[in-house]
Amino acid sequence: MGIHTYFRSLNELERIIRCPGKFKFEEHSVAAHSWKVVQYAKTLADIEEKNGATIDWKKLYEITSSHDYGEIFIGDIKTPVKHASPELRSLIQQVEEGMVYNFIEEHIPGDFKEIFHRQLREGKDDSTEGLILEAADKMDQVYEAFAELQRGNTEKEFVKMYRDALIKIKNIDLYCVAYFLNHILPDMVNDEITSSVDIRRITEEALAHPVTV
Amino acid sequence: MGIHTYFRSLNELERIIRCPGKFKFEEHSVAAHSWKVVQYAKTLADIEEKNGATIDWKKLYEITSSHDYGEIFIGDIKTPVKHASPELRSLIQQVEEGMVYNFIEEHIPGDFKEIFHRQLREGKDDSTEGLILEAADKMDQVYEAFAELQRGNTEKEFVKMYRDALIKIKNIDLYCVAYFLNHILPDMVNDEITSSVDIRRITEEALAHPVTV
Amino acid sequence: MGIHTYFRSLNELERIIRCPGKFKFEEHSVAAHSWKVVQYAKTLADIEEKNGATIDWKKLYEITSSHDYGEIFIGDIKTPVKHASPELRSLIQQVEEGMVYNFIEEHIPGDFKEIFHRQLREGKDDSTEGLILEAADKMDQVYEAFAELQRGNTEKEFVKMYRDALIKIKNIDLYCVAYFLNHILPDMVNDEITSSVDIRRITEEALAHPVTV
Amino acid sequence: MGIHTYFRSLNELERIIRCPGKFKFEEHSVAAHSWKVVQYAKTLADIEEKNGATIDWKKLYEITSSHDYGEIFIGDIKTPVKHASPELRSLIQQVEEGMVYNFIEEHIPGDFKEIFHRQLREGKDDSTEGLILEAADKMDQVYEAFAELQRGNTEKEFVKMYRDALIKIKNIDLYCVAYFLNHILPDMVNDEITSSVDIRRITEEALAHPVTV
Amino acid sequence: MGIHTYFRSLNELERIIRCPGKFKFEEHSVAAHSWKVVQYAKTLADIEEKNGATIDWKKLYEITSSHDYGEIFIGDIKTPVKHASPELRSLIQQVEEGMVYNFIEEHIPGDFKEIFHRQLREGKDDSTEGLILEAADKMDQVYEAFAELQRGNTEKEFVKMYRDALIKIKNIDLYCVAYFLNHILPDMVNDEITSSVDIRRITEEALAHPVTV
Amino acid sequence: MGIHTYFRSLNELERIIRCPGKFKFEEHSVAAHSWKVVQYAKTLADIEEKNGATIDWKKLYEITSSHDYGEIFIGDIKTPVKHASPELRSLIQQVEEGMVYNFIEEHIPGDFKEIFHRQLREGKDDSTEGLILEAADKMDQVYEAFAELQRGNTEKEFVKMYRDALIKIKNIDLYCVAYFLNHILPDMVNDEITSSVDIRRITEEALAHPVTV
Repeated sequence: MGIHTYFRSLNELERIIRCPGKFKFEEHSVAAHSWKVVQYAKTLADIEEKNGATIDWKKLYEITSSHDYGEIFIGDIKTPVKHASPELRSLIQQVEEGMVYNFIEEHIPGDFKEIFHRQLREGKDDSTEGLILEAADKMDQVYEAFAELQRGNTEKEFVKMYRDALIKIKNIDLYCVAYFLNHILPDMVNDEITSSVDIRRITEEALAHPVTV
Repeated sequence: MGIHTYFRSLNELERIIRCPGKFKFEEHSVAAHSWKVVQYAKTLADIEEKNGATIDWKKLYEITSSHDYGEIFIGDIKTPVKHASPELRSLIQQVEEGMVYNFIEEHIPGDFKEIFHRQLREGKDDSTEGLILEAADKMDQVYEAFAELQRGNTEKEFVKMYRDALIKIKNIDLYCVAYFLNHILPDMVNDEITSSVDIRRITEEALAHPVTV
Repeated sequence: MGIHTYFRSLNELERIIRCPGKFKFEEHSVAAHSWKVVQYAKTLADIEEKNGATIDWKKLYEITSSHDYGEIFIGDIKTPVKHASPELRSLIQQVEEGMVYNFIEEHIPGDFKEIFHRQLREGKDDSTEGLILEAADKMDQVYEAFAELQRGNTEKEFVKMYRDALIKIKNIDLYCVAYFLNHILPDMVNDEITSSVDIRRITEEALAHPVTV
Repeated sequence: MGIHTYFRSLNELERIIRCPGKFKFEEHSVAAHSWKVVQYAKTLADIEEKNGATIDWKKLYEITSSHDYGEIFIGDIKTPVKHASPELRSLIQQVEEGMVYNFIEEHIPGDFKEIFHRQLREGKDDSTEGLILEAADKMDQVYEAFAELQRGNTEKEFVKMYRDALIKIKNIDLYCVAYFLNHILPDMVNDEITSSVDIRRITEEALAHPVTV
Repeated sequence: MGIHTYFRSLNELERIIRCPGKFKFEEHSVAAHSWKVVQYAKTLADIEEKNGATIDWKKLYEITSSHDYGEIFIGDIKTPVKHASPELRSLIQQVEEGMVYNFIEEHIPGDFKEIFHRQLREGKDDSTEGLILEAADKMDQVYEAFAELQRGNTEKEFVKMYRDALIKIKNIDLYCVAYFLNHILPDMVNDEITSSVDIRRITEEALAHPVTV
Repeated sequence: MGIHTYFRSLNELERIIRCPGKFKFEEHSVAAHSWKVVQYAKTLADIEEKNGATIDWKKLYEITSSHDYGEIFIGDIKTPVKHASPELRSLIQQVEEGMVYNFIEEHIPGDFKEIFHRQLREGKDDSTEGLILEAADKMDQVYEAFAELQRGNTEKEFVKMYRDALIKIKNIDLYCVAYFLNHILPDMVNDEITSSVDIRRITEEALAHPVTV
């Protein structure tokens, strides 16, 4: 009971793995993903702010850190399911919001209910903060998928994830998004693309290396 | 494409873990669960058959082995979500059936479509086979939850799982279910209940043991 | 004691991993493997039946689901050992059968002993069902090895596993096996062979994609 | 190079496990821990703000999310080592700060260096935000240790972790800390203390349950 | 080919898990077990040497470090199988020795064959070194089983492992074994026996602790 | 208390993973690494002895098996940290030695303290045994890094690990090291370099294979 139950529930997001069912070289929990989104969003907001925008940092803090909290109740529902029909997508969202609402009503002390209701709301709206959250969320999808593809994962799902995330990001009209696409993404594609490691060459060079260590 | 895609898809159920989010000492994949359900059902059907019932073994084989196939598409949707509203439960089932249907239409060669549509159908109905499937499915829930509780898992979820499964089983009107409740379950509760291991006593006995090994 | 002990023992096959000792990107438990064999066999039998054969579905159900049950007692004994000498192979099989026999004698109630002795027998014989089991068992070996090779596993063991399994399958004289070799296997080799993912190309295409999502 | 390298580095904190070497029923990555600290701090700050304090939300956001970033360079150095001597502790902190500094200088574009230097600074100071961070960090230590002890972990290390964290929290002079100790912690100790699950009783109750489900 | 193949093969023992099939809170690889046996044996030999015995350290080094090398070929064959019949046990040992022999003949350069044949021999004989190896091997079985029982593992297998290992150790006639039974084992039983952690008491004490940290 | 505490502590090295933070296809514990170093060193010493050197086998046994024991206290401190400054490296080593010293003083009975102090000392000195330990330790680094690179790991860290280890080995002036570089390492580079597996070709060959199995 109480805020304790809320604190204890955070643990669950450490156990829910993203993208269930598909083969992956590295698993990512929803908790770790949430932390990375908090980090990306912070940097994106800094870039946006430097460009003259006003950031509501409290709002950004709230919506980024809790953006997947509802998965405690509904799990990581596969994307194709969420979008199988607008009706189902809408109903699942209603259910998620309802379960979050009930959780707060049941466990959070009266004087903090309002704060929790506000904080655990769906954060992706058209505000700058909401758009930054959407961009940060999709950026992690790009990074996750890219790493898998780079290591040789042949699941078509990751090509789809990578592509869909880039398209979504591209459509967000913010300076920081353009900055990401023009300055950050190219570094990823250039530096990280697998230049196959020539083990033979590295071996020979190392063994020819002058004696001084 | 083709039946190959169906064979390849089976792998996914090895990666979907039951009961996501809750702490558990031992994880169980949907594939392993499915296999155990096949085994339980076989034994339950043997007991029922011995009692004079007629078993359609081909039907039993089909519905038990594929009973969770749909989770490839919808994942292991948390029970509270499936039951949040009859409307949502019905819609999720429609979506699952739709996705299975589309998969078969897209990948299975024409002359086998009918067989696949029949085999990947929802198997829990009022037939003896359907009831045996339901009992076997719930039995695995009993075993999973019991093992966790026995090892000291304090998640209330497992007490709930254990209790709800027993209640559901109890309401299935079959001879083999009564047999399970009267002869098999008591063995579990009696033998397996933790009699705490007295390590000190075991040590002393072992060291006092006569020299002959 | 009792059938409960048998039900509880199934859990062990979830913990025994196939092909121990070799590096693998993905592990497969004997339980999951058993489930997949049940599934492959079902489809192979459907294909065979469609071609005019008569299938004893009850027998198929029994021998496929329990075909590796003995590994609870002997573990996953490495293939080279089992075949090190006909004498050893025969002795290991005797021991396995003996241990299964003793287990049934000790734990299964009198009126079900016969059923269990029949069901936990070695199922690979020359009947259509026995040959289907052998084909299904080897098919899973093909799929397991193929997936590892495709992801870049360089253990020679997997090339051997892949090749040996194909050769064994090829020698099984059934219509469904010929169907598998002519229609299903080529899909695997064609679709799944790693066409290296061109990340740079995918990136450029995604970013050029028209704004409408 | 560039901010991309910073984004890519976040992944490392998903692979560093807290409290290395000790037996634990559940592992926690530094990334997941960081996310939970962000969450605890948000709630503590809400409580503090409600009590009349002024919170610099941007500062809080920055210092909580990045508080363990330096572990990318120095790993999770065992607490006894960090405190083995003030000299070593001070030197390790210098090295960590130096490595973070160098990383920023090497990879972050000129116009963002200042922001990163500020954000990846050590956040635990005497400001309200710094104290909230310290409290949130120690709270996660309480929760981690408590969960292990509750599940039966006998490593003395967890008793020590639990106790030391409580003592540290107790010494932080903030309203929200007092609130935690008086209202939240007791719920944890009361609700969560293992009331051993009486499986026999639960079984009997479930089986006596009226037929209506 | 060559000694390289031998070096590369050591990796396999890191992947073979002891006691396959049984539930365990913590897994132990054969490699880690081998290392611990090397350590226990070193200490036992020191104790024996202090008591006046002469230790052939080179022999001890060789037989302890390689004592389970054969498991690369035969895996961790379950104890009940190895002892199912003297005939099988003998045959398995022959096969293992044969496989090790062939490996050496095939891969080890001529001038080192003899050394390898000697080093990868079965080390448990009646010499002091052989008895120390046997004692060290059984000691690890005691520690493994004890840890599981202490954490609440109810698998009867671990009670059996614990007991059987103690009985075997007890029957080894060495000073260091008596030392272990009289001075080391009691510490384990006394110190480590679970005194249940009173979380409530620890909490109250910590919160009452004087302010000075 | 007592030697028991030392025996129990060995378990910790099974839980400390080498190279924390970096992505790796396969993890290696410090315990497994230690065992492999014991094995490599044994073979290197055999080669050295065959060439006329005198080996103190007892010393070799002691320093190889315990060479990473100190990591129980300091963990696997990332290499860049250890070398960040000579001052820090020296201080960390002092702290490690101090903690090992204190452990022995606190737990080891008086008459064995001297043995333990000697055995748990830093073994890498200029003696033949010390140099063999250094070579064996670096060899495992070569093998670990090589395996990762071969499987397609693109972390630059492994290229660095591979190269640095080879350079360090190269600078050790021993016959066995030259033997390793001239006879063993080339086998690794030649045999193991990934010749991509042509799955299509293997499939065709297997299916064309004459019927005799």
